[in-house]
Order: sequence, then structure tokens, then C-alpha cells
Amino acid sequence: MTETLFKHPRYPLLVVISGPSGVGKDAALERMKERQLPYYFVVTATTRAPRPGEVHGRDYLFLSKDQFAEMIEQDELLEYAVVYDDFKGVPKQQVRDALNSGLDVLMRLDVQGAATIRAAIPGAVTIFISTVSEDELAERLATRKTETAESLKLRVATARREMQRVREFDYYVINRQGELDQTVDKIMAIIEAEHCRTHQRQISL
Amino acid sequence: MTETLFKHPRYPLLVVISGPSGVGKDAALERMKERQLPYYFVVTATTRAPRPGEVHGRDYLFLSKDQFAEMIEQDELLEYAVVYDDFKGVPKQQVRDALNSGLDVLMRLDVQGAATIRAAIPGAVTIFISTVSEDELAERLATRKTETAESLKLRVATARREMQRVREFDYYVINRQGELDQTVDKIMAIIEAEHCRTHQRQISL
Repeated sequence: MTETLFKHPRYPLLVVISGPSGVGKDAALERMKERQLPYYFVVTATTRAPRPGEVHGRDYLFLSKDQFAEMIEQDELLEYAVVYDDFKGVPKQQVRDALNSGLDVLMRLDVQGAATIRAAIPGAVTIFISTVSEDELAERLATRKTETAESLKLRVATARREMQRVREFDYYVINRQGELDQTVDKIMAIIEAEHCRTHQRQISL
Repeated sequence: MTETLFKHPRYPLLVVISGPSGVGKDAALERMKERQLPYYFVVTATTRAPRPGEVHGRDYLFLSKDQFAEMIEQDELLEYAVVYDDFKGVPKQQVRDALNSGLDVLMRLDVQGAATIRAAIPGAVTIFISTVSEDELAERLATRKTETAESLKLRVATARREMQRVREFDYYVINRQGELDQTVDKIMAIIEAEHCRTHQRQISL
């Protein structure tokens, strides 16, 4: 008799957490880190200056524009975008190393960035996070002190357009007010279920 | 502003728990009932006589062969099979009622029965339960007091053939010795993740 019944190793996953600004993507990832879940959380590279309290390697990889340009030239970014005058992106080598160590890799991306990853890596698991309603999203964005009335209006309009892209994503999770742990539980269930698929996704970068 | 961002009601699922004899399907379902999980567990109809302690409506629906024949004629069975001289099957109306009440419906079927359901109801979620190895499966079957050496050999051979059909299933869960709760947790994660799919499965009977 053979020892193994069915060859089914646990391939590490590339999980993209996305959704409009204000739905709680960062809060969900922060809660996952607090709960010390056994995932690798991607550290985004950026050319902007660190804000007070931000730590290189933990919050962001703070790079010079020269360094960033070199990564673009070497095709060493999975995805990148210009935000105002600065760049941010996902270093390929970091993700490659994490996957090679067998860890599931989680990254937070805006809706456009998620679309880029999906096109480049069809095996990525994409999760769209949402609020219950547009009103709640507007309220959440309004409580951000940094928002002027104009930029708030712009963000709400952008969020509304981005919601129309939800069907491009594999999964849809509503992050209800005050239920962040349930949101995290759903993301964990999705990851566990993906590992149980008979036909597993396999990532190569 | 519209109130709802994306119409995504929680459609009830039809979940088939399958796999070779001896992998622990019944034990997993029993544990789920003990944990009082909010699922509807299908009660199989059978024409065989109740064994001591078995309760009609809880363990099985005990039907006469006449009653069973009538259900076949009325196309009121989702699936049925002849086991030795007796019949067993899944009453359609029971599943329909449970789904209409909004509950996820779980049923235990052998590998052949699962294939029948998959063909009839493409939206069904199919989970293949397995042991780690063929040796462990043979051991588990051997500990069943009811098995003669001949019938044991037959079951092991059948299990080996059935393992070859695992790729027809959506999910694959290894039920490790002594880790029944982890097996149940995985089944629960699969159900939760299926509810989070952007493109949900919808069942109609």
C-alpha cells in the first residue's frame, strides 16, 4: 500500500486585501498582527518621508527615489503606484522569500493595485472589504481628521466607483462597525478554505 | 446615496460530506451536532429495520419499501442507492424545506452518491474527507467489530479506488487521528468562505 492517499502539500497563498478607502483594511490587518496570526504581512516600499513614530521595515520600507527607480527598472516590484508626488509599491523579492518559507503572504492594496496583481498573478486570492452601506463609508471617511470637505467628496465618489469592481474579486467581506474580529475570522476562514481546495492555487513569481 | 453597496444575500448552501468508508464522516457530523452548529443535518431515508436505540426522524427516516418506491416514482429523492437488500436515499422535500428556512444543509454521502448530487446540483459544495494514509484507513476499518477479514479487504480496495475520485470534489480535508475538532473547524471554514464568495452558489431543487 502506498503511504500517501493523495498528494496535497500546503502551498502558500498570496492574499490581497483590498476595497475602497475607509472600509477598514488597515484596521483588519493590524488586528491580525495583534492576534499574531501565522501569516507574512507585506511591508510596502515608499519614497515618502517617515512620519513621527513610523519605523523602517515595520510600517514601510522607506526608500529614496533613486532606489525606487532602480527597483522599477529591475522589474522588482509586483505593483507600484504614484501617490501625490511619491511612489509606493510591493517588492517582489520580499514576497518571493516569504512564499519560499512556506508562509501565506497578505498584502493590502487599493482596488486598482489589486487588479494589477490579479492580472500578473492569476493564482492570487483577492478579498474585497466593504462597509455595509455608502452612508457608513462616508461617515467613516468624515471622522478622519485629515479630510477636507472637498477631499471627502472625492473619496466617497471614488469609493462608489470602486464598489462596481467587486465582481472582479474572489471574495467579499463586509466589515461591520464594531465587528473587526468577525471580519478577521472571515478572512482566516477564506485562507483555510483555500488551503482545502482540491485544486490548489500555486503562485510563481 | 444608495443604502446597499453590493447586493449579496447569504444564500443557503448544500454541502456534501463524502469520502471512503472509515475516514470518519459520521464522527465529524456527530461532533458538529454536539457543537450545536447552525446547520441542517439531513436525515437519510432507509428501508432497513431500526437497530436498537435508533430513533425515527433522528437517526434515519424508517420507511417501508412501498413508501420508498413511491418516493422514487414521484422523483422525490435527490439520490438513492441499494445497500444489500435495502434502500437508502435523501428526501428532496426535506432539503428544500431546510434551504427555504435559510439554513445551510449538510449531508453525508458515499463517493458514488456525491457524484450523483454533483451532476444533479452543480451548485453543491463537495468535501472529500480522507485519512492521512491507506494504512491508517485500513487500521480504522479493522477496528470496526462488524468487519470480517474478507469484507475488510473489500472495503480497503474500494476506498483505494474511491481515492482516485478526489479531484472531482471541491475540497479535500484530512481527518487526522485524534483531531476531529480540527476537521470540523476546516469544514466550518469552508462553509464560511463559500458564503463570502463574490459569485455565490445558488441552489434550486
